[in-house]
Amino acid sequence: MTHRIAILGASGYTGAELVRLIATHPDMTITALSADRKAGMAMAEVFPFLRHLDLPRLCKIDEIDFSQVDLCFCALPHGTTQEVISALPRNLKIVDLSADFRLRDAAAYEKWYGAPHKALDLQAEAVYGLTEFYRSEIASARLVAGTGCNAATGQFALRPLIAAGVIDLDDILIDLKAGVSGAGRTPKEMLLHAELSGGTHTYSAGGKHRHLGEFDQEFSKIAGRPVMVQFTPHLLPMNRGILATVYVKGDAKTIHQTLESAYASEPFLQVLPFGQLPSTRDIVGSNYCHLGVIGDRIPGRAVVVSVLDNLNKGSSGQALQNANLMLGLPETMGLTLAPIFP
Amino acid sequence: MTHRIAILGASGYTGAELVRLIATHPDMTITALSADRKAGMAMAEVFPFLRHLDLPRLCKIDEIDFSQVDLCFCALPHGTTQEVISALPRNLKIVDLSADFRLRDAAAYEKWYGAPHKALDLQAEAVYGLTEFYRSEIASARLVAGTGCNAATGQFALRPLIAAGVIDLDDILIDLKAGVSGAGRTPKEMLLHAELSGGTHTYSAGGKHRHLGEFDQEFSKIAGRPVMVQFTPHLLPMNRGILATVYVKGDAKTIHQTLESAYASEPFLQVLPFGQLPSTRDIVGSNYCHLGVIGDRIPGRAVVVSVLDNLNKGSSGQALQNANLMLGLPETMGLTLAPIFP
Amino acid sequence: MTHRIAILGASGYTGAELVRLIATHPDMTITALSADRKAGMAMAEVFPFLRHLDLPRLCKIDEIDFSQVDLCFCALPHGTTQEVISALPRNLKIVDLSADFRLRDAAAYEKWYGAPHKALDLQAEAVYGLTEFYRSEIASARLVAGTGCNAATGQFALRPLIAAGVIDLDDILIDLKAGVSGAGRTPKEMLLHAELSGGTHTYSAGGKHRHLGEFDQEFSKIAGRPVMVQFTPHLLPMNRGILATVYVKGDAKTIHQTLESAYASEPFLQVLPFGQLPSTRDIVGSNYCHLGVIGDRIPGRAVVVSVLDNLNKGSSGQALQNANLMLGLPETMGLTLAPIFP
Amino acid sequence: MTHRIAILGASGYTGAELVRLIATHPDMTITALSADRKAGMAMAEVFPFLRHLDLPRLCKIDEIDFSQVDLCFCALPHGTTQEVISALPRNLKIVDLSADFRLRDAAAYEKWYGAPHKALDLQAEAVYGLTEFYRSEIASARLVAGTGCNAATGQFALRPLIAAGVIDLDDILIDLKAGVSGAGRTPKEMLLHAELSGGTHTYSAGGKHRHLGEFDQEFSKIAGRPVMVQFTPHLLPMNRGILATVYVKGDAKTIHQTLESAYASEPFLQVLPFGQLPSTRDIVGSNYCHLGVIGDRIPGRAVVVSVLDNLNKGSSGQALQNANLMLGLPETMGLTLAPIFP
Repeated sequence: MTHRIAILGASGYTGAELVRLIATHPDMTITALSADRKAGMAMAEVFPFLRHLDLPRLCKIDEIDFSQVDLCFCALPHGTTQEVISALPRNLKIVDLSADFRLRDAAAYEKWYGAPHKALDLQAEAVYGLTEFYRSEIASARLVAGTGCNAATGQFALRPLIAAGVIDLDDILIDLKAGVSGAGRTPKEMLLHAELSGGTHTYSAGGKHRHLGEFDQEFSKIAGRPVMVQFTPHLLPMNRGILATVYVKGDAKTIHQTLESAYASEPFLQVLPFGQLPSTRDIVGSNYCHLGVIGDRIPGRAVVVSVLDNLNKGSSGQALQNANLMLGLPETMGLTLAPIFP
Repeated sequence: MTHRIAILGASGYTGAELVRLIATHPDMTITALSADRKAGMAMAEVFPFLRHLDLPRLCKIDEIDFSQVDLCFCALPHGTTQEVISALPRNLKIVDLSADFRLRDAAAYEKWYGAPHKALDLQAEAVYGLTEFYRSEIASARLVAGTGCNAATGQFALRPLIAAGVIDLDDILIDLKAGVSGAGRTPKEMLLHAELSGGTHTYSAGGKHRHLGEFDQEFSKIAGRPVMVQFTPHLLPMNRGILATVYVKGDAKTIHQTLESAYASEPFLQVLPFGQLPSTRDIVGSNYCHLGVIGDRIPGRAVVVSVLDNLNKGSSGQALQNANLMLGLPETMGLTLAPIFP
Repeated sequence: MTHRIAILGASGYTGAELVRLIATHPDMTITALSADRKAGMAMAEVFPFLRHLDLPRLCKIDEIDFSQVDLCFCALPHGTTQEVISALPRNLKIVDLSADFRLRDAAAYEKWYGAPHKALDLQAEAVYGLTEFYRSEIASARLVAGTGCNAATGQFALRPLIAAGVIDLDDILIDLKAGVSGAGRTPKEMLLHAELSGGTHTYSAGGKHRHLGEFDQEFSKIAGRPVMVQFTPHLLPMNRGILATVYVKGDAKTIHQTLESAYASEPFLQVLPFGQLPSTRDIVGSNYCHLGVIGDRIPGRAVVVSVLDNLNKGSSGQALQNANLMLGLPETMGLTLAPIFP
Repeated sequence: MTHRIAILGASGYTGAELVRLIATHPDMTITALSADRKAGMAMAEVFPFLRHLDLPRLCKIDEIDFSQVDLCFCALPHGTTQEVISALPRNLKIVDLSADFRLRDAAAYEKWYGAPHKALDLQAEAVYGLTEFYRSEIASARLVAGTGCNAATGQFALRPLIAAGVIDLDDILIDLKAGVSGAGRTPKEMLLHAELSGGTHTYSAGGKHRHLGEFDQEFSKIAGRPVMVQFTPHLLPMNRGILATVYVKGDAKTIHQTLESAYASEPFLQVLPFGQLPSTRDIVGSNYCHLGVIGDRIPGRAVVVSVLDNLNKGSSGQALQNANLMLGLPETMGLTLAPIFP
């Protein structure tokens, strides 16, 4: 039996990535695609790379008959999302890719996103969508909040280490390198090819990046006490991929073993042999996350490197993985595409 | 029933692309991978993006038991290929990706490749592997010669036009733009990132590119008289993709209709609406070829633009499409992955 | 004695390139920089790469005292430019980089730019700014109209050939490859890094590109009869550089000799040895144009390749070269910076 | 009076960058260029971007009459360099760009470079070439050892802070992002465009990068006690530029003031206003280094970001700056070219 899928916000990169993935999913059919400002257009006009697919035309959200939808992906901007989801049927299964339901705490949301939350009941209901760590909650959830792509990259490196108590919780530093597709398709001067190609710079440095709200929430919850990490993101001249270089204090081999044990049966989290570090080139277009650990020459320090595709494992792939769980399908269905290289 | 597949030359880009594609093919299993200089290594060491797959170790060719192989892809350099295939069992189904068996004529081979052919019997036996035009021959062939990636791009634009007699055969010009992965993985100064990124130049200009041998052979055969096209390739700072801008003299709308009719039922050849021209971005990682036609302001002139992924539809995807036919499988099996964008 | 320079439209790429070049010019000082929407900002805020320079703040045009300006560069959009220059003092020397004064014919302007010209007297007064071919007119001009960057690239390849009558005037084809900085700094979806990097496509194909107005005007004037070229531009994933592949019918060696003779004493136009073709990599950041000629395998056909930096020789370098002439300075002053590679 | 300059190793990127810079230097003339394997070739064949210059042909080192050379730049690989310089006249002024004379200590050299030093007398004589900190020694030196490009980037961020005692010496972490031209022009698989573009990875992680030898030597000398920094370099898909993200413990404003004071009169070291961080895009092609400081949300932690062009300020620009001092010329002569953007 095929599940009927709606995607709200299909004219952005994460929306298109969902369509790409679901196109090869054996048990899902896309029955509605919304994009308010492009309603009426064919998806092939907005994303010509999808022209070989037989897809519904883009429509406005209120043109969708949600009684005929089994699960809805919502790939809209934060803020807007709260209002849209509040207006959807309360029994509709939803995987949200925005930031609106990631934070459990209303005050934390307001602090990081600069406005009070307008759908506190939904915020309370939502399950944090980091699949590998919230499987059972997700399987029974109605509303799942996809994680930030940077937040996912850092958490895959750190969660088992914090849980196992093998690193110093007061000295965790994440230096992150991100491709540009995470910044979306809305035209901005700083995202032009002429501005970005051939160079790099930091952004939201100094502890201002909103994904810190997720790190704080999750790491403190695992540790059972407040944990604050230092986090400096950089924008790189590449389209897809995030590499997090995570600096920790602890024994490198113990750290490696901890990750290996934690992820031994995870289909998408691949821990490299000790001393090898991964490249973003090796996960592009896929739902895989590669992790590596090396010790530093300074005793007691280790470096964990985590890479994933921000549009896939970092958002749309993760969303599909969660949707599989919510629909009672095998978790990996439609997600085992190999990365593409070169 | 799964078919047992060997890939010779698995340490190059087309070999790796074959592995990537076959990984999602429901009726094929890779049972042998050869790479002489890297024999003994795991594929994950040579191509870490494939580390999630369970693959045989790289071996030397003579370590393969070909009695346990149903079909063999050969992705070795031209010249070497002749000798290797000559030594393989004569009943083994082979899809060759090199240039060694593309030209029917021994003199033409010697002219373009600078050495006499050493396996004339195989040359005579081989079928030219442009799937959409040699389906029945390929289905019953033992040895299929994959086309040049540039040669495929140009032929998809021109074959129906030459066959239908709707263009001037004496004034065909192909200005081609190619990504760098077609040049292979062997280190050369001119292929370094520092040399290539951010610029463009011609190569093999003036009628020296070897794929002209294929154009001459095929176009003359279709026309029933000698046809010589002008062909200037350019190298672009992109990894995958070929765009052929084909200049012809004829009526643009007739040309468009001719392509539309010719490809109406082709799953992988997509003709855009009249006046729209395709981008290489929209076919990366896929077996699709997009074609567009526009008339020029000068009456009687038209431009046909054809784009495909050199590693996929231009070589490994085409090879798999041919293998499907040779094994009696549905032609599109394992090949309907959507392109990846951005 | 230093000449006082104003630059209108200093917040765009050609404006910034003018600042970069004039910074090393021994006889010019920038005394005013305008950018209406960024008036009040320091140039270092708009273009941090210029932060080491001591520059005037950006201002509105009407804040400039033009009685204290010896020469004004105008790097504003077409349309706007007509009105701005109409309002400037009629004795002010002006080098305009827009399209507004390139075409001598009012009807041609309206045809290509879609609106009637609003400053016909200035249009009549302006001199076409292709320095190497209009030196004496430029030296005595008050208003010089910089050429289109694509138009310059094509003309350097073709003007001497048309003048010498060594090519067929009815079969000239320009297939052009352009970097993205020519499209400017205004944010547009199609100019985003995520959209452009790693691919290529045509634009304004079919005879719609506005620079055709310049080709028509100039080539017809040289030939003494109408000449219409075919012209297909492509956008490439590189920031700077244009490569024009010009297909002509004529004797390749004669063509090469014609270019060599024509440019023998030109400091910026470098003709490569016969059979060698240039790369855009070798002119980035400079005022040099490299040209090469090769014969095709089809007798009587030749390919001329011309490369230049669209922001430099294609616009701001050309503008400075013209300004030198207008101010009685050595033509090459401030323009002999080597290209940058890699 | 012009100084006669020889460049050994002119076929590499740093050699070519020296030629580019010296071409606009008013008091230097290149009289000899060596490149053993390319001896006899014109520089324009090896680096076509220099074709507009009138340069001596490449020759073998022993063909150079060093009695007619005032200063020699040596841009050869480490190891080889020791032997070459040992054989040069002992009164010849030399600026070496290799790693051979950077380390003062023979044991440190052997540790980091894996072989005993073969010219201990020269090692003892050489002056470390970080211009801004060794001006007087360089001015009177005969042999100056250019620094590592990564080592320079990190030192510009850290030296004044260590000297002023405003940071914790036991917790310094440098996460560095480097463009690919620093890896040179010798063909290697990992440096191919198809391998590198569109991705990032670490290299020499875990405390294995040789530039650590320079950090250890210099920082310990300044501090008067051993200082060991943690250092993780990453390779980025860009040709030029290094960005060092330096994590320190100390008061951010004090750190900013310390850098501002230290560099107040430095022509090439530009400290941005507090809280602003630099981009590699803004220094490409120039001798400028931009530095920025920001405080983290975690009290007592600061981030210093330092960017420079590895081929220019990181090697050839630095070398020319040192040569100016050694020849009694103004330090900035020939070095004030603006960066190029975009």
